[in-house]
Amino acid sequence: MSKEAYEPLTVESLPKRLGNIESITKHIGEKLQDWQVTEVGDGNLNLVFVVSKDDKSLIVKQALPYVRLVGDSWPLPLNRSFYEHEVLVRQSARDPGSVPEIYYFDETQALIVMEMLSPHKILRKKLIDGERVVGLADRLGKFCARTAFRGSDLSLATAEKKKDVALFQGNSELMAITESLVFTDPYFEADMNHNTLELKPVAERLRGDTKLKQEVQRMLFKFTANAETLLHGDLHSGSVMCTGSDTKVIDPEFGFYGPMGFDLGMLISNYLMAYFAQPGHRLEKDLTSYQSWILEVIKDTVDVFMDEFDLLWNTERTGILYPASLFEDQGHSSTSALFDFKRHIWEDAVGICGIEMHRRVLSLAHNADFEDIQDTKIRASLEARNLMMGRELVLQRSAIETVDKLVDLAKRYNSEVYL
Amino acid sequence: MSKEAYEPLTVESLPKRLGNIESITKHIGEKLQDWQVTEVGDGNLNLVFVVSKDDKSLIVKQALPYVRLVGDSWPLPLNRSFYEHEVLVRQSARDPGSVPEIYYFDETQALIVMEMLSPHKILRKKLIDGERVVGLADRLGKFCARTAFRGSDLSLATAEKKKDVALFQGNSELMAITESLVFTDPYFEADMNHNTLELKPVAERLRGDTKLKQEVQRMLFKFTANAETLLHGDLHSGSVMCTGSDTKVIDPEFGFYGPMGFDLGMLISNYLMAYFAQPGHRLEKDLTSYQSWILEVIKDTVDVFMDEFDLLWNTERTGILYPASLFEDQGHSSTSALFDFKRHIWEDAVGICGIEMHRRVLSLAHNADFEDIQDTKIRASLEARNLMMGRELVLQRSAIETVDKLVDLAKRYNSEVYL
Repeated sequence: MSKEAYEPLTVESLPKRLGNIESITKHIGEKLQDWQVTEVGDGNLNLVFVVSKDDKSLIVKQALPYVRLVGDSWPLPLNRSFYEHEVLVRQSARDPGSVPEIYYFDETQALIVMEMLSPHKILRKKLIDGERVVGLADRLGKFCARTAFRGSDLSLATAEKKKDVALFQGNSELMAITESLVFTDPYFEADMNHNTLELKPVAERLRGDTKLKQEVQRMLFKFTANAETLLHGDLHSGSVMCTGSDTKVIDPEFGFYGPMGFDLGMLISNYLMAYFAQPGHRLEKDLTSYQSWILEVIKDTVDVFMDEFDLLWNTERTGILYPASLFEDQGHSSTSALFDFKRHIWEDAVGICGIEMHRRVLSLAHNADFEDIQDTKIRASLEARNLMMGRELVLQRSAIETVDKLVDLAKRYNSEVYL
Repeated sequence: MSKEAYEPLTVESLPKRLGNIESITKHIGEKLQDWQVTEVGDGNLNLVFVVSKDDKSLIVKQALPYVRLVGDSWPLPLNRSFYEHEVLVRQSARDPGSVPEIYYFDETQALIVMEMLSPHKILRKKLIDGERVVGLADRLGKFCARTAFRGSDLSLATAEKKKDVALFQGNSELMAITESLVFTDPYFEADMNHNTLELKPVAERLRGDTKLKQEVQRMLFKFTANAETLLHGDLHSGSVMCTGSDTKVIDPEFGFYGPMGFDLGMLISNYLMAYFAQPGHRLEKDLTSYQSWILEVIKDTVDVFMDEFDLLWNTERTGILYPASLFEDQGHSSTSALFDFKRHIWEDAVGICGIEMHRRVLSLAHNADFEDIQDTKIRASLEARNLMMGRELVLQRSAIETVDKLVDLAKRYNSEVYL
């Protein structure tokens, strides 16, 4: 199939086009007439097919040459599928079991065939539905720590890391989406922006805040220039799939080398949005208990991240940074250096977190946590809390030194009335 | 010539091998028997020939596949010549007239033929000889500002910048030299280190300073990960050639994408070493006056850098960072953002400056400013001032907010007695 020119799959053409690939048929069988194919892509960018036969199934994900959310007026390179595959391979090596197993990859067709996660459900949906996931914080805290550490100059040989940095610079068009949609558009009246009507005064307040814009641009500078480690690049709750006790990370096509706190910050941001949105989804008793659970997940995720980072620092520090030759081999502790390093990661995470809280409410791509709340007056009042806390995170990121402080802030903003 | 395998030139073989290249002969003539060829390379890495005929001359610089200073036990890739040429092309475009004109480049032979700078002299030698250069601060302050700004995401289109970042990741072996010789080796007893014997107690004091090592590694993290702009990478006073009133920058083979303050910091560092070394080169009256001149050059260089950066910020901000759409177009000033941005550059410059002051005295490659002082007791006492000020620069880089503070520190350390 790979020698043919790129052509999008359809439900009808899929069996014929993939039916002779052994790494696929060994999972789903060779009887093409028995394959059940459905298109389930509900994301913004790609075709996603479920192919099943009896109790077996797999996922076929194919990039489209444009942004699905917008249409063919916004072209997008197919090579994002190449980068997604490259990231998945690295994530699987750096945190085994964290991502779906890959069965097949075709660069020309921009197509990845992978493990069907079942009965997994998108984490965002679970957070809206008020469902708990055992082990969520442990899985994602470790995922963020392991991929951050093992993709950095703390771990990799410097020549290998630089070669990989060079490779991922080619994913520039997806980085450009983040650069504009996340870091820039929310802060002025950009063409593709939209927001809940009642939110206008708060949106205007943020867009008039020059100091806020300055600090966001400072973070954009880090996003675009600080190639600290290979990141997922889009680790929101729609990129996580869970059962009640299993968690996997999907969709790393925005993978890039950037600040080590980026994925952690974006993840926390999506928990915070789920937290602030809860009054739109459930009543008092369940509400309090479920909101507390979300805050616990945030705290535990960061604690797990920091503990795992400590472990990796003390057992796998094989890169050029903070070499043992300068510290442990001299009888000098590197504990203070580690503390300082984690502070740097955390400060960036807090800043990114605040920015993501803005862009999901003010820029192009919103999320269901708020959008599913039909009463726009209620929605806007909850979004306003989210926006204002985001502002404080960006502005005060160096003063919000711990996750406990961040959680306390969330509780405070959760009772503010802006509209 | 380019189709032949790489072979080092000799004084004898050079005319025959380069004599049929028109871009060379048009500068020096076609009569090969009249070419005067001398090898003048006194650097650490390369062959350098002067080819002259009558009043015309040019430079032929060819990389050797090993470190000349050490010998063929330390191999070094020839592609550094490719990177040197790439940097020269960009520097020439970004700050016209700042670098020698290129006549010819042969990638396979790792060879650059360029303008002979005459009667220019290496700046380091002039600083040792007590000679002044008119316009030095203006030329190099602008050079650092223009190359920093115009090679960054403040100016370039993001896709173009990322493509260039990818290209320069390939210069990893020269970056690796800086990573070890500059940022790591000085701070423990590395094999290739050497220092003035009498300096031992001060060297031990620095190597026992865990906080210092932590901060230096924090700067190494920036060096290796923060691809902010394309830098010269080795802008010491041996990479600058001057007459009494003209200044050019040479030898950018260490070119890399890194912190915008890197070149400025390394340059200041070399001025400070020249400053501290002066008592080993001249007597009281000339000494005071010449030392004051060096400090003036430092202050003027930074002032020119900052003024030029302001100008570029206000007239050429065409990149993704701090776009006018968020600031000026909204009637919001970006002056505070500019101030913050320059503070970031300056803080990095101060840190790099301190580290370079250490490595030139403790690591492999020393400089003549101190080495030419025959009396090792005097030399060590001057080196000690330099080392201790370097320590303060690294540790206090965020508190030394202005060049005036840095200059005041230099005056204070210049009267300290450590040995």
